[in-house]
Amino acid sequence: MGQRPLILITNDDGVLAGGLEALTEVAVDFGDVVVVAPDDSQSGMSHAITIKQPIRIDSRKSSKGLDVYSCSGTPVDCVKLALNQLLFRKPDLVLSGINHGSNASVSVLYSGTMAAAIEGGVNGIHSIGFSLLDYLKDADFTLAKDVCRRVIAEVMKNGIPPEICLNVNIPVVAEGSLKGVKVCRQTKGFWKEEFVKRTDPFNRDYYWLTGFFNNNEPDAEDTDEWALKNNYVSIVPVRVDSTCFDYIEELNKRSF
Amino acid sequence: MGQRPLILITNDDGVLAGGLEALTEVAVDFGDVVVVAPDDSQSGMSHAITIKQPIRIDSRKSSKGLDVYSCSGTPVDCVKLALNQLLFRKPDLVLSGINHGSNASVSVLYSGTMAAAIEGGVNGIHSIGFSLLDYLKDADFTLAKDVCRRVIAEVMKNGIPPEICLNVNIPVVAEGSLKGVKVCRQTKGFWKEEFVKRTDPFNRDYYWLTGFFNNNEPDAEDTDEWALKNNYVSIVPVRVDSTCFDYIEELNKRSF
Repeated sequence: MGQRPLILITNDDGVLAGGLEALTEVAVDFGDVVVVAPDDSQSGMSHAITIKQPIRIDSRKSSKGLDVYSCSGTPVDCVKLALNQLLFRKPDLVLSGINHGSNASVSVLYSGTMAAAIEGGVNGIHSIGFSLLDYLKDADFTLAKDVCRRVIAEVMKNGIPPEICLNVNIPVVAEGSLKGVKVCRQTKGFWKEEFVKRTDPFNRDYYWLTGFFNNNEPDAEDTDEWALKNNYVSIVPVRVDSTCFDYIEELNKRSF
Repeated sequence: MGQRPLILITNDDGVLAGGLEALTEVAVDFGDVVVVAPDDSQSGMSHAITIKQPIRIDSRKSSKGLDVYSCSGTPVDCVKLALNQLLFRKPDLVLSGINHGSNASVSVLYSGTMAAAIEGGVNGIHSIGFSLLDYLKDADFTLAKDVCRRVIAEVMKNGIPPEICLNVNIPVVAEGSLKGVKVCRQTKGFWKEEFVKRTDPFNRDYYWLTGFFNNNEPDAEDTDEWALKNNYVSIVPVRVDSTCFDYIEELNKRSF
């Protein structure tokens, strides 16, 4: 009898997040789970790595006997630490999330959750990022867990090509009204920022980054934002390699 | 007579970096330049945004009369601040760099320099990231400036499609031995990390993230790493949208 699959779980909301616990509860049915997650929220950290500061690691056994590591660094640091320092063998699967909040459309760029999954892909490991469209700390992950279970089962059965990972976003819907799963492309859009200006007690200005998402194509039915608005789970296949292959030939005609 | 083009310049090595000065010296010949750059090194910060801390901004007029802003945040924060807070109109061009060190292959994922360019692309602005393969603070940017001039001229003349930006890497070569410019794809590879373990005076361990690049395809002549090793400037067209369009149809056949 062969080894059980080794599954690495991380996130960007931190080791105490409810979404991480929910994902772990699902994953243990598919293999041996190790958790390596940031010790605090690392939302918006994208693919950042920690090079100006040293990294601290702490560990414990969970109540269910799992190895849980927390790390002072970013989600990508967590994956690098796991692959190069903490795990005794290469994992078969990297799972990231369940994120508290959407990572659809361009949010994939800023997301620490998806960056961790992409880092798994860079290392040739099947990787999936999961996000629930609920920012609340005590979000209800019941439906999301069911979605995770189905997606993990499908990926473990049939695989995905190297250098592709999956960005799975799950809408908040009333019980029984989820319409299904839609494979989508990323919606074209951008975050329109509004910097909130404040003044500190020493009379110096500072700014808080806030903003709202601007959807360039709200009616495009093949996009993730459309799917989510219409009560579907969205799955976007994400390329690890950002080369625009289609444009190489055209660019070669230019005279630089 | 129309307005001169507005050019936003940023980087990830910080507002005092020699590479930023070199790029600015070139850019002023093409339009009105505004510099918005991090107040300190932000290497490896990728597409991170600052949401847990407020952002501080400082500004001055340079000796040549340019508006120069420094910002406590990341390169992507700098672009967001410029577009949403500091500039009176949308820039025609975002230039990032010249980075001190390579951003070829998967380094594009970790790079603050390239993230700033990609953020320009998200906002529909022609954007280019430049990197010189010399990490030294006092690197010689003479050749790199010439390359920047040619690439900027070509992009301003003929444009690039929306949602594509350029990742330009420049090798360090002896005078006269640059072979030219090659349009490339990103090399497949990964960083193999070696975490250096130390112990602090309080007997607690900490780790420094170090590593070396592992090239999966050193002989592939259409890649950026090959071009750079063979004395070519590499230009990789980078997609802002990470959807793997080719895989949507296949993934749609799966039963999630």
